[in-house]
Amino acid sequence: MKPVKVGLLGLGTVGGGTVNVLRENGDAIAQRLGAPIQIVHASARDLSKARICDTTGIMLTTDPREVVDNPELDVVVELMGGDGIAREMVLRAIANGKHVVTANKMLLAKHGSEVFAAAREKGVMVAFEAAVAGGIPVIKAIREGLAANRIEWLVGIINGTGNFILTAMRDDDREFADVLAEAQRLGYAEADPTFDVEGIDAAHKLTILASIAFGIPPRLENVYTEGITRITRDDVKYADELGYRIKALGIARRTDKGVELRVHPTLIPEGRLIANVDGVNNAVLVKGNMVGPTMYYGAGAGAGPTASAVVADLIDVARGMNAPGDCRVPCLAFQPEAIAELPVLSMDEVETAFYLRMKAVDKPGVLSKISSALSDFQISIEAVIQKEPKHGERQVDLVILTNVVKEAIMNEAMRRLESSDTIAGPIAHIRVEHLD
Amino acid sequence: MKPVKVGLLGLGTVGGGTVNVLRENGDAIAQRLGAPIQIVHASARDLSKARICDTTGIMLTTDPREVVDNPELDVVVELMGGDGIAREMVLRAIANGKHVVTANKMLLAKHGSEVFAAAREKGVMVAFEAAVAGGIPVIKAIREGLAANRIEWLVGIINGTGNFILTAMRDDDREFADVLAEAQRLGYAEADPTFDVEGIDAAHKLTILASIAFGIPPRLENVYTEGITRITRDDVKYADELGYRIKALGIARRTDKGVELRVHPTLIPEGRLIANVDGVNNAVLVKGNMVGPTMYYGAGAGAGPTASAVVADLIDVARGMNAPGDCRVPCLAFQPEAIAELPVLSMDEVETAFYLRMKAVDKPGVLSKISSALSDFQISIEAVIQKEPKHGERQVDLVILTNVVKEAIMNEAMRRLESSDTIAGPIAHIRVEHLD
Repeated sequence: MKPVKVGLLGLGTVGGGTVNVLRENGDAIAQRLGAPIQIVHASARDLSKARICDTTGIMLTTDPREVVDNPELDVVVELMGGDGIAREMVLRAIANGKHVVTANKMLLAKHGSEVFAAAREKGVMVAFEAAVAGGIPVIKAIREGLAANRIEWLVGIINGTGNFILTAMRDDDREFADVLAEAQRLGYAEADPTFDVEGIDAAHKLTILASIAFGIPPRLENVYTEGITRITRDDVKYADELGYRIKALGIARRTDKGVELRVHPTLIPEGRLIANVDGVNNAVLVKGNMVGPTMYYGAGAGAGPTASAVVADLIDVARGMNAPGDCRVPCLAFQPEAIAELPVLSMDEVETAFYLRMKAVDKPGVLSKISSALSDFQISIEAVIQKEPKHGERQVDLVILTNVVKEAIMNEAMRRLESSDTIAGPIAHIRVEHLD
Repeated sequence: MKPVKVGLLGLGTVGGGTVNVLRENGDAIAQRLGAPIQIVHASARDLSKARICDTTGIMLTTDPREVVDNPELDVVVELMGGDGIAREMVLRAIANGKHVVTANKMLLAKHGSEVFAAAREKGVMVAFEAAVAGGIPVIKAIREGLAANRIEWLVGIINGTGNFILTAMRDDDREFADVLAEAQRLGYAEADPTFDVEGIDAAHKLTILASIAFGIPPRLENVYTEGITRITRDDVKYADELGYRIKALGIARRTDKGVELRVHPTLIPEGRLIANVDGVNNAVLVKGNMVGPTMYYGAGAGAGPTASAVVADLIDVARGMNAPGDCRVPCLAFQPEAIAELPVLSMDEVETAFYLRMKAVDKPGVLSKISSALSDFQISIEAVIQKEPKHGERQVDLVILTNVVKEAIMNEAMRRLESSDTIAGPIAHIRVEHLD
């Protein structure tokens, strides 16, 4: 096999990490692939900036077009991020007949169908292991390792920042805002944390995972997205008392009525392995109809882990580019002609259990009234925590775990309760999944 | 792509499972691969036996040679087990120019080099995802997903029976023999449980994992193997008190002095994710120099999970067989010419921490004497449990966790202690790994 000539768009954390991986492990990589992988050309916005990598021997430019148009290159690695220039460059690389490796989840979640169609047209590959869960080879696991299965559902802790915050809230008994500020100081959260704490980043990744799991086109707009900003220290403590952990999950499930695609904080039983995935780590639990549940765990971000995935993709692409098209693994796991829309279940139709936290008026018979109001909606109480009123207060924290119920019905029941005189203020609610 | 014609040797649990997976998920598999996979011919020792699968449309024989010699077949799946006829059949299939998929860990651990050399000679593939950790795609993860890394170490819970027994000993506070008998009743353990409880099955799997992680030829004889039969209910309880779990681990680690290859019961900190892998489940934790620790979890045995891996291999082989040889993933992850022996560290040279349980004579100053004897060997005590003597006894259980020390030195220290009058009887010792 001939040396593989690569162009790199972006020399930041992941780009620099990719250069470092190829320098430090280049001999082992060549021993596996049977040929060296060479970064020939790279672009960065500011060439005077200090880098985490040594760029000696790499032709540098500020213009990504120069890289994409370089006729010497076999593969372009897009690590710019965003869906502006990155999209333009990826499409241009494809149009130039180059294979593409990208870590860009937003691009694929929003414009995946366009990108994959263009790649198909030109007979080139688009690889994106680094777009989901950093260094964990979960795209490969679902697309190839579990290829004999019908995937029934998957749930993922796929945003390290969110998981770091929820873990620290529990470990240190602190409030969200407090931990977020610390995460920002430590560099785990961006100055504008919206993408992470509002679930948007996770929604990008879930879009991609659902696409390869079910053979559906990636459509970010189909994912219900709810952040972790309203989770309180009390919620974390009450969940603990009930034997649960609160995790920000991406959930994709195939049901008879349609596909569920949702990102939101979720209570999961503490005995589940994934409930014990802490800190900035990621994990994806995938249920196949033959293999049962399998889980993939590791670092979800960082220069080394993400570059590990980028270079694994480069190795795969290097093998695939010398093989006939039908010997390659299809981008979205299924042959393009088998990719088809599935109906997406609205959140009203989703069935899930609930954790409810409310302020109840401290009067006799309150629990019985609430319980009877819920039972009017066929909602039963699986567990309850009622605390004594705090000093000088007339209201008590009342926490309830319900059975599985259609979300529309729960919303109706909550409205009824909130309008009654037994409850003060709005009811905080978090979905509960048992992952059976 | 043309339909893929497959012959099956063995129609037991995994063979029957493979037929079922292809029947039940055949459409989804063809949508991924772009061609159907057809089992055309199968052999079984006794054709009159009841099967878990429907064999309609499959040509059946009691003679595996007929399958292996069938010119119509592209791939032979060997699910007979053992290294007698199975070895013969695999080599014959290869000689006939057929690709091979096998779940046979013993064959590969003992005769892998012979099998892979023959396959190389004939230009065919040998795939073996199902040989290690059932349905978990851990071979693929190490060989492809982490291909950009130097693998530093891996540890695996790779024998479900052993893990079931250790989990039940802890959950139900029972002794080994008692739980083993139950495991045999439940079908989790064989009538002759030697392979599972003496670590031999795990040693087969570790041989394969180490081979693809480090690029060394598979050599079962290089693996130190120790079973779980001497673990007592007390050990499990004391480990718990100290914040550890006892797991039967396969450990492969690359050090400056050589490779460690060892299977033995091990104390690991309860906070580690892999310490919480319970029951018959398997998990493999792999540390790459770029990606850091990653873990792969799922069912390690059973018809569905193992067949899931067999069929994933069939899909890979179907893609690879129409591609040039240098586009295929090498059997042992590295190109054949890069596979090389590495020195294997003897257990005397291995450095590890220890859990020691001994009967100490109940006299003042005993702990101080033992501690001072250990410190003569530069062994320090990290934690200790000393219980009051049981009613009517003059001896107390003394449990010690040590620092990391060369095994030869620990053996010497234990001999010294055992020959002193402060200790009665032999010292039970279990290695401790912190998995940092």
